[in-house]
Amino acid sequence: MAIKTIGLMSPGDMGNEIGKVLLKNKYRVITSLNGRSDRTRDLCFKAGIEDLRDLHMVVNESDLILSIMPPSEAEVFANEVMKIIQDLKVEPLYAECNAIAPSTSERIRLLISSAGALYVDAGIIGPPPGRGEATRLYVSGKYAEQILPLGGENLKIISLGKDWARSSALKMCYAALTKGTMTLDTAVLLAGKQLGVYEELKTEFSESQPEAFNRMNNRIPWLSTDARRWIGEMNEIRNTLEVSQLPGGFHRGAAEIFSLLSESPLAIETVENADRSRTLDEAINIFAEMIRINPEESNQS
Amino acid sequence: MAIKTIGLMSPGDMGNEIGKVLLKNKYRVITSLNGRSDRTRDLCFKAGIEDLRDLHMVVNESDLILSIMPPSEAEVFANEVMKIIQDLKVEPLYAECNAIAPSTSERIRLLISSAGALYVDAGIIGPPPGRGEATRLYVSGKYAEQILPLGGENLKIISLGKDWARSSALKMCYAALTKGTMTLDTAVLLAGKQLGVYEELKTEFSESQPEAFNRMNNRIPWLSTDARRWIGEMNEIRNTLEVSQLPGGFHRGAAEIFSLLSESPLAIETVENADRSRTLDEAINIFAEMIRINPEESNQS
Repeated sequence: MAIKTIGLMSPGDMGNEIGKVLLKNKYRVITSLNGRSDRTRDLCFKAGIEDLRDLHMVVNESDLILSIMPPSEAEVFANEVMKIIQDLKVEPLYAECNAIAPSTSERIRLLISSAGALYVDAGIIGPPPGRGEATRLYVSGKYAEQILPLGGENLKIISLGKDWARSSALKMCYAALTKGTMTLDTAVLLAGKQLGVYEELKTEFSESQPEAFNRMNNRIPWLSTDARRWIGEMNEIRNTLEVSQLPGGFHRGAAEIFSLLSESPLAIETVENADRSRTLDEAINIFAEMIRINPEESNQS
Repeated sequence: MAIKTIGLMSPGDMGNEIGKVLLKNKYRVITSLNGRSDRTRDLCFKAGIEDLRDLHMVVNESDLILSIMPPSEAEVFANEVMKIIQDLKVEPLYAECNAIAPSTSERIRLLISSAGALYVDAGIIGPPPGRGEATRLYVSGKYAEQILPLGGENLKIISLGKDWARSSALKMCYAALTKGTMTLDTAVLLAGKQLGVYEELKTEFSESQPEAFNRMNNRIPWLSTDARRWIGEMNEIRNTLEVSQLPGGFHRGAAEIFSLLSESPLAIETVENADRSRTLDEAINIFAEMIRINPEESNQS
């Protein structure tokens, strides 16, 4: 069956940009904006994504449902869709694109398949389409090939074959590195701040670890924006590493840093309105203020 | 009091190279090789470091004692020296150069000061002298200035002022980043291996994270060599972050990775005899073999 109509849930930052690519490729893109923010409504309206309001309507008209949302919501959403599929007796493709552990993807596959729909495990790597390098949408599982025609400019679709959950595994490992490194960078600078050696630490990094120092300057000032969404992703990565007999500690720490940052005053910013003039020092000062200082362990004299 | 004779304990890989710089700067460098390996004896003989055999003799003749050893041994050694200082009624400078938490350094300061010796908190950053960039020896505390004349080619001595434990704090934060990153890199590649997406992960890293991919290729094949020594250092870093109200998880994970690597067949190599032709893939294969695979979580099909 050729895909004509795509149900995009939900059209947030990443979803919206992927929606634009699909619209450009002449697919009809529909969604339900029930309970969504004005910002999301505005983004969808500008992109040309149709709001059918009710999720039943979306499932009923979709040849393919793309689940793109914070990982902590993926399973609840799949459960909701599963019930609608059973009600409507439809058989859409369901592509689970979220940053979830292979074991979570496998649970969702069983749920979706039990209702009669066709499951595709997928993983998104890279920024949203149109913000630099092309976004990679990895797909795997028995029905993965059916997704391949969706690709286009700024959106590369890559099949990892018929085995289930390989795309989720790849996404987990990739984000384990990138987000693990960002949060480690943040933790280390905050430790320097807490211990009163921040300036000396920055001097050392700028001279002997220039790549790390660049990474810190380029990313930490705006890391709060995504922090809340990424807490759940860190928990999925921890789970993935632990079932692979590898340490869960790195991403337990990463989740704690994102949790701290998600409570910062900077967390209300969005990608559109973030203050691009903010410096690393300003961000670290704001985050450090949120940590209660334990005076016993600072530099005694 | 001018420093003429320096007791270097113990003259392993880092200690030996620092000893060579001190000898070149016309200091007398003495040690005790009791219970040390043939490799260390050989290194000392070649460098011109005198073996006085007995630690009492070393303490008795030293104007300055440099403690350079695995962090897990630092406190035991300080305790031993403290007793000898009390016996001999001498008042040497004692520079604690190990990778230890500020709180550990503070405990050792109290111990050493109680015996009447003069404590310097120090931290070594960079490779041993003569292997690339100049080694930085940071010093802090009331007597730090007395160490400054020791520096020279390949060994930069930098005072962080009179506050205690700032050098230890700086070393902890610096190594938290460098060794935290190396072990995270290793954990992520091993996860890719365990989950059957190693090749795809390497392709992604080489294309979209070239700095990380270079780092992996340049460091992981020989990471086992130092792994055992660094387990204790990771525990000191975890302690440092936790008392600063920051996550301990990153370096709990790092300690677990070093622990795994320290049990690998590659851990018997030394810096002199390591196989420099080993590739990243070969090392990852060897480490992965050491992890028992949990087949439930690999790619189901």
